[in-house]
Amino acid sequence: MPLFMDIHHKVEGLTSEAVSAAHQQDLAVQARYGVRFIRYWYDERTGKVFCLSEAPTPEAVRAVHQAAHGLLADEVVEVHEGT
Amino acid sequence: MPLFMDIHHKVEGLTSEAVSAAHQQDLAVQARYGVRFIRYWYDERTGKVFCLSEAPTPEAVRAVHQAAHGLLADEVVEVHEGT
Repeated sequence: MPLFMDIHHKVEGLTSEAVSAAHQQDLAVQARYGVRFIRYWYDERTGKVFCLSEAPTPEAVRAVHQAAHGLLADEVVEVHEGT
Repeated sequence: MPLFMDIHHKVEGLTSEAVSAAHQQDLAVQARYGVRFIRYWYDERTGKVFCLSEAPTPEAVRAVHQAAHGLLADEVVEVHEGT
């Protein structure tokens, strides 16, 4: 299954609690779209959020965010993982 | 130790082999700067690379890339991790 990094450049008023709540909403609806959110990273100062997911397509990643909370990512990039 | 996501927006001619080799060079010098690179993700089509690291400061992350291969990140963002 392809891996995606989606990037939100600047979420206004981002807090740890708000991003955690949004992520829980993603998890609640992701199965409908065949998506599995794996992990996310955020910065309260800049409002940046990075979400790593497995999904069939980038559209599926966007659909989860749309259905869950409407906060769409600015970019959804298919990535490979190195270690 | 703070966690950082550094982002390279567009590495020209990025290949899986080249990014892996650059990452190995990061690992070879990181200890001098107190940095630990954890994982990276890349997209050969767009040339984007995301590196996750633990480091004392963003300058330390930049210093590793500079010393290892000179490919500096466009952004180094201090992040928190959610799961």
